[in-house]
Amino acid sequence: MTDYLTIPTLSSINKNMKVPPMGWNSWDCWGAAVNEATVRANAEFISKNLKQFGWEYVVVDIQWSEPKAKNHEYNPFTELCMDEYSRLIPDTGRFPSSADGKGFAPLAEFVHSLGLKFGIHIMRGIPRQAVHRNTAILGSDKTARDIAKTASICAWNTDMYGVDPSKDGARAYYDSIFALYAGWGVDFIKCDDICRELPHEEEELVMLSKSLHSCGRDMVLSLSPGPALLDKAELYKQTADMWRITDDFWDNWQALYNMFERCEKWCVHTGAGHYPDADMLPVGAILQDYSPDNRTKFTEAEQRTMMTLWSIFRSPLMIGGDLAKCDASTLDLLTNEGIIGMNKLSRHAHMVWRREIGGTELILWTAVCAVGGQYAAIFNAGEKPCEVSIPLSDLEIYRSADMTELWSGKTYSSENALKASLAPHDAAAFYIG
Amino acid sequence: MTDYLTIPTLSSINKNMKVPPMGWNSWDCWGAAVNEATVRANAEFISKNLKQFGWEYVVVDIQWSEPKAKNHEYNPFTELCMDEYSRLIPDTGRFPSSADGKGFAPLAEFVHSLGLKFGIHIMRGIPRQAVHRNTAILGSDKTARDIAKTASICAWNTDMYGVDPSKDGARAYYDSIFALYAGWGVDFIKCDDICRELPHEEEELVMLSKSLHSCGRDMVLSLSPGPALLDKAELYKQTADMWRITDDFWDNWQALYNMFERCEKWCVHTGAGHYPDADMLPVGAILQDYSPDNRTKFTEAEQRTMMTLWSIFRSPLMIGGDLAKCDASTLDLLTNEGIIGMNKLSRHAHMVWRREIGGTELILWTAVCAVGGQYAAIFNAGEKPCEVSIPLSDLEIYRSADMTELWSGKTYSSENALKASLAPHDAAAFYIG
Amino acid sequence: MTDYLTIPTLSSINKNMKVPPMGWNSWDCWGAAVNEATVRANAEFISKNLKQFGWEYVVVDIQWSEPKAKNHEYNPFTELCMDEYSRLIPDTGRFPSSADGKGFAPLAEFVHSLGLKFGIHIMRGIPRQAVHRNTAILGSDKTARDIAKTASICAWNTDMYGVDPSKDGARAYYDSIFALYAGWGVDFIKCDDICRELPHEEEELVMLSKSLHSCGRDMVLSLSPGPALLDKAELYKQTADMWRITDDFWDNWQALYNMFERCEKWCVHTGAGHYPDADMLPVGAILQDYSPDNRTKFTEAEQRTMMTLWSIFRSPLMIGGDLAKCDASTLDLLTNEGIIGMNKLSRHAHMVWRREIGGTELILWTAVCAVGGQYAAIFNAGEKPCEVSIPLSDLEIYRSADMTELWSGKTYSSENALKASLAPHDAAAFYIG
Amino acid sequence: MTDYLTIPTLSSINKNMKVPPMGWNSWDCWGAAVNEATVRANAEFISKNLKQFGWEYVVVDIQWSEPKAKNHEYNPFTELCMDEYSRLIPDTGRFPSSADGKGFAPLAEFVHSLGLKFGIHIMRGIPRQAVHRNTAILGSDKTARDIAKTASICAWNTDMYGVDPSKDGARAYYDSIFALYAGWGVDFIKCDDICRELPHEEEELVMLSKSLHSCGRDMVLSLSPGPALLDKAELYKQTADMWRITDDFWDNWQALYNMFERCEKWCVHTGAGHYPDADMLPVGAILQDYSPDNRTKFTEAEQRTMMTLWSIFRSPLMIGGDLAKCDASTLDLLTNEGIIGMNKLSRHAHMVWRREIGGTELILWTAVCAVGGQYAAIFNAGEKPCEVSIPLSDLEIYRSADMTELWSGKTYSSENALKASLAPHDAAAFYIG
Repeated sequence: MTDYLTIPTLSSINKNMKVPPMGWNSWDCWGAAVNEATVRANAEFISKNLKQFGWEYVVVDIQWSEPKAKNHEYNPFTELCMDEYSRLIPDTGRFPSSADGKGFAPLAEFVHSLGLKFGIHIMRGIPRQAVHRNTAILGSDKTARDIAKTASICAWNTDMYGVDPSKDGARAYYDSIFALYAGWGVDFIKCDDICRELPHEEEELVMLSKSLHSCGRDMVLSLSPGPALLDKAELYKQTADMWRITDDFWDNWQALYNMFERCEKWCVHTGAGHYPDADMLPVGAILQDYSPDNRTKFTEAEQRTMMTLWSIFRSPLMIGGDLAKCDASTLDLLTNEGIIGMNKLSRHAHMVWRREIGGTELILWTAVCAVGGQYAAIFNAGEKPCEVSIPLSDLEIYRSADMTELWSGKTYSSENALKASLAPHDAAAFYIG
Repeated sequence: MTDYLTIPTLSSINKNMKVPPMGWNSWDCWGAAVNEATVRANAEFISKNLKQFGWEYVVVDIQWSEPKAKNHEYNPFTELCMDEYSRLIPDTGRFPSSADGKGFAPLAEFVHSLGLKFGIHIMRGIPRQAVHRNTAILGSDKTARDIAKTASICAWNTDMYGVDPSKDGARAYYDSIFALYAGWGVDFIKCDDICRELPHEEEELVMLSKSLHSCGRDMVLSLSPGPALLDKAELYKQTADMWRITDDFWDNWQALYNMFERCEKWCVHTGAGHYPDADMLPVGAILQDYSPDNRTKFTEAEQRTMMTLWSIFRSPLMIGGDLAKCDASTLDLLTNEGIIGMNKLSRHAHMVWRREIGGTELILWTAVCAVGGQYAAIFNAGEKPCEVSIPLSDLEIYRSADMTELWSGKTYSSENALKASLAPHDAAAFYIG
Repeated sequence: MTDYLTIPTLSSINKNMKVPPMGWNSWDCWGAAVNEATVRANAEFISKNLKQFGWEYVVVDIQWSEPKAKNHEYNPFTELCMDEYSRLIPDTGRFPSSADGKGFAPLAEFVHSLGLKFGIHIMRGIPRQAVHRNTAILGSDKTARDIAKTASICAWNTDMYGVDPSKDGARAYYDSIFALYAGWGVDFIKCDDICRELPHEEEELVMLSKSLHSCGRDMVLSLSPGPALLDKAELYKQTADMWRITDDFWDNWQALYNMFERCEKWCVHTGAGHYPDADMLPVGAILQDYSPDNRTKFTEAEQRTMMTLWSIFRSPLMIGGDLAKCDASTLDLLTNEGIIGMNKLSRHAHMVWRREIGGTELILWTAVCAVGGQYAAIFNAGEKPCEVSIPLSDLEIYRSADMTELWSGKTYSSENALKASLAPHDAAAFYIG
Repeated sequence: MTDYLTIPTLSSINKNMKVPPMGWNSWDCWGAAVNEATVRANAEFISKNLKQFGWEYVVVDIQWSEPKAKNHEYNPFTELCMDEYSRLIPDTGRFPSSADGKGFAPLAEFVHSLGLKFGIHIMRGIPRQAVHRNTAILGSDKTARDIAKTASICAWNTDMYGVDPSKDGARAYYDSIFALYAGWGVDFIKCDDICRELPHEEEELVMLSKSLHSCGRDMVLSLSPGPALLDKAELYKQTADMWRITDDFWDNWQALYNMFERCEKWCVHTGAGHYPDADMLPVGAILQDYSPDNRTKFTEAEQRTMMTLWSIFRSPLMIGGDLAKCDASTLDLLTNEGIIGMNKLSRHAHMVWRREIGGTELILWTAVCAVGGQYAAIFNAGEKPCEVSIPLSDLEIYRSADMTELWSGKTYSSENALKASLAPHDAAAFYIG
């Protein structure tokens, strides 16, 4: 019998168990303008304060090859740093250690030295400047112009053309970029313009996935942007580790509220090594490129709701804020061992019901815990505070039980109901022994 | 630790646990022409041979108030048996014990005497003949004409008009019919023309449900016909015990094949006392009103697939064939204790994946067992036989395990994979300790 | 050369020429409650004041067989007057001359004696009370129940069931009602629940049309309600004389404004003996059953716009107001010879353009005149008055021309443009010699 | 009274009258590979043989700035000839007279010397190579990169980016290209990627149209590709002279058959100087770049049907075949004076009906003749030959009439019907006096 006083945590995890990735990504705080100093500072913070709670990946997001990027906007048709084989390389102004053709290898080495893993963002396709200059492809006598897919462009960024998988040289191009990344020591690829773009770009996704998985180095493949297509769930599972179920998620309640419905539909597709992704956590110091004082607009209650939903649903967890400015409250949010344990050990999670009770909207989720016991989360998605008392029979538990609320640490003995006092937009998470 | 040799069965069930209803229904074998002798014979068979396996409800399906019904067809605009309060009553020709105004009370009493429960079919609304004759409503000074909803008719049967919940007398009418049924001793109401008819008839469903649940007798409320609307899942949960997720299900492979997708979508809405319903099991002697020799066209493999899917998904189980003609193979199918145990103890069931493997289409489901352990079912939905070996890591089991295949009873010790040899359209079901 | 001073009028019409029907209908003023006195009074007014301008049909609209009708509402499931052959007959309370089984014959005779023609409204199908009582059909051994189409009812009236054209006895029923109407001397049938109901009820329309056209008396067949389906235009042309292109049209500007788009789409389907119908003219004393003081809310400008559009488009013209209360302004509107001439002589009418000019929305139509010359109508559909000057080249007239504005009678000589001063919602109509 | 023996022809046309353009276009015969010799040869043929029948424009279609074009295919991302102001100029290899920066001026001058007019094809937008090189824009300090619309590309050709009308420099670019074309002496612009692309590219169309119409030289503006959007008819009318109602039209019966429905919908939008365009006539020697022996697959009957429909509908008429290989039969088709007269003088044309008669599908059109009389065309769109006799009352002619069939020249006196013997896919065209 599991002891309800011993909440399952990271230490409960079997080493073979596949778990959703956790880490930090530069987008929410620095947009297209991320630089090496920022990445190093965040990596150091994670190593010192978060690593022991499971936070692991340090990911450089979009536009690292663009010398002029200043903020979250993209410069149209701008010149990118590229090698002689049509492959984008880091701008040495922003990433000084990449000078002399070293690419991201020195930065990856630094991250690895901290006991962490290193990731980068890429766009599906081949640079337009390569196509217009008709540059070479490593390992092929075809050129950029030969493999570009003529009418395939990204709707919001002018850097790339799609690659046509039916063309000779297409696979060679993808092999050449993943060989480059493997050589740098990359552990995580966030590939953009390739998720909600199905079914149109389905064959390019399949080729890219095969190429990545045969490059000789383990790399997580993360697909963006969302929303992913529900009827393509099996394809995402077979090609990728995680895929975005939403467009860019930011710190407003409506977006968080809408996530419940997305998670309700995607929950059955979470499994061994493949995770629907509710996107980064816009917590702490975000949008620093617009103002150094920007912080998340989410209330603490909303942040608990977000962490609870992401965790019971088993979304990957990627911190969006600049950790150099991390405050105590954010640190508490990110280091709750029971919640992170739930993110790793939740199984078969699903919504139980969604109801108007006491003038507010309540949402009940449950999941099995992989090492014994059961999780339940109750969300107040409405605008009124409420005292909830939900009979355990709603969870198909037909007995009294012991339990712990994970945020407060409060324990209950021989209870027949989940009990919580919830502010608007707040959540409670229970581990039931 | 659960012993894998001890497969969970009915005896594992806590008395307080809510479980999906099981029983027999007259439609598949006798259509609109069911009569008292048939019902009694089936009840007796169940009592003698099936009751101990959990089979419990004996349900008289549609048109029991229609004197001329001969088969599965409906006679349009035909005269029905009705009392002075606009309430349909059994035809005494077909149900002799109902003579002298006793209604179904004597038949219910007989069924109860066998240790079983008794159910009847009704149609949403009020008889058209009541509206056209403008007859009385018990407990109201309004008449049938006052409460009929003018443009609400069933698309496939001419007996009724809908009742307009906004009219005085509407609730009185529904109260009067459920009072009548409670007086007869009815335990189960299969209400028709009220499931896929949402959202149009949503308010009538709510009124009907409230009326039934305040009649003073426990009755299961089963909604037909399907397919139910997925975006109304919460409403079905709150008003009914079970609801059809498919139009009438018959014995052809395509219909069974399609059920996988329906179950995939509905599985998260199965819970404590509310069950998406995959419809009756067209096994054994069906369509007897057309020919006494008719039997199901499903192969034995397909019948296993059906029972496995219905059971892991936790559908209610209602036998469609005439049990007076039950053969040994059908009896075996209906009395597999491990399968019936899965129907009762499966929790959080969901599809894991659906893939083309070895030239055939395989579908993997899993569920937690409420008393410990885990279920898995593997279906060969394609046209080629295959040897399957599915790593347990696909089920997020990262260790070797002991298990039993429920149809064959074959046990496996310290295995790392689910192994089965499957004919086309066949299934295997595992209990993993 | 046609003389522009001689505006074409009714006297210009060849006797063989087919023209859109004109007349009066009881619906707009009396709803379901029309009675014999009203019909006679209106017929007498028409004979005395309007007949010479082409107004000809006197039509008794819906519910003439219903004893209790009081206003524009329908009494659900109410008892109707019916003969022994399932055929509705006039209520003798409301139509005293129909006593002794004479039906509408005496009223028709009276209307004919005034030099006018007589029409009635019918609903598609057979009375529900006939079906529920299973009454006889003249000329067939089948009964009402045998021919009713089980799931075909009107969405807004409870009187009838549809008739199933595939059933024996269906055609006999339709033949029997048209024989009855022919015997009464009916000249015009407004058939309801049969126009926007396509394609579902298409076969019933075809049977009804064939039956009517073989009854031995010429009757106009008018189909309601709209909006008709544009992709069924050919079917309407081949089965009926006129069909409604709009739902019930009432006296509000938005409905009139919307008619421009409907007419724009339907204009090419107007032809020899078949007319898309923009519905009755709600002018003068309407809605008399709700208050004897009700009058149209259309301004005089809007009434001109309506008459101009209906006329150049060649819609049938049916007066909706009670003529017993006709005022001088309405009489002027209805007796403009040039406008009525345009209604009869317009050919190949179509919108020319629709543009924002001078801060208001102008719409230009043109048509050829069947006896020489050309029509043009210019509408101010916006909210600002404007002075318009539209070059004749927009009408593809590349010369100066003489013309008359039909509402004002103002003539122009050797002009190169259409000139008019238009209030908001007003119209000008030109005959160009 | 018009004399039916004097069929109206070009000589009946008032000099001020606007008429649909007629001419020749290089696409159907030479695709992207047209060259100066071909254009000159066709212009000379037209001047000698067709000019007196109204054929006037000589149009150089797509890719004249592309040195490598070989056939109807486009070379993706290929290098184009461009001046220093981001404007495409003719390839001097294919158009030798354009050397020394003369552009199309010498060729236009040659065409003008033959009494004909000269046209060219352009693509909406600015060359991608200009954007990627960020070249200058004449009359602006903005550059190509500043005005490109980032996500606007053609779906089937890689030459251009759209221009963003909201950007400074956008109008200057369009002004600069039309100034160039005006300087060359261009009379006709076929602008591509700008017709079915509405509403997305609506603002670019408006800017382009304004720019063209203020360039100081009259040029026809023709929009491609189709199908145009019916609900944008008013916009096309106000911005362009002609616009394609169909995707590229080729020589197969199904495409011709489908044109009837397109013409039926668009006919009311034909008017003074604005013409829905049914596309080029693929007659004679087409697809010469694939084989010098290719000729149209249309039968002579189908060619008559095409010319009859295009003419009564008033489509622009642009010959697609290489006239250097024109045969006698094609020449006859293109020089029927009565048919060409109908194309110029048809007014208010519309379909009358479309019916199954005698086992084949007949379609009747009519139109008024601008100089008196009426046109009618009867098409056998079915697969069986038939003798047709259509009463004139179907055309609302309620008298006997004299008439001439325009293809055969056969005359009829005092007839009451249109009579013709039609092979499958054939047509007859009548002028009725």
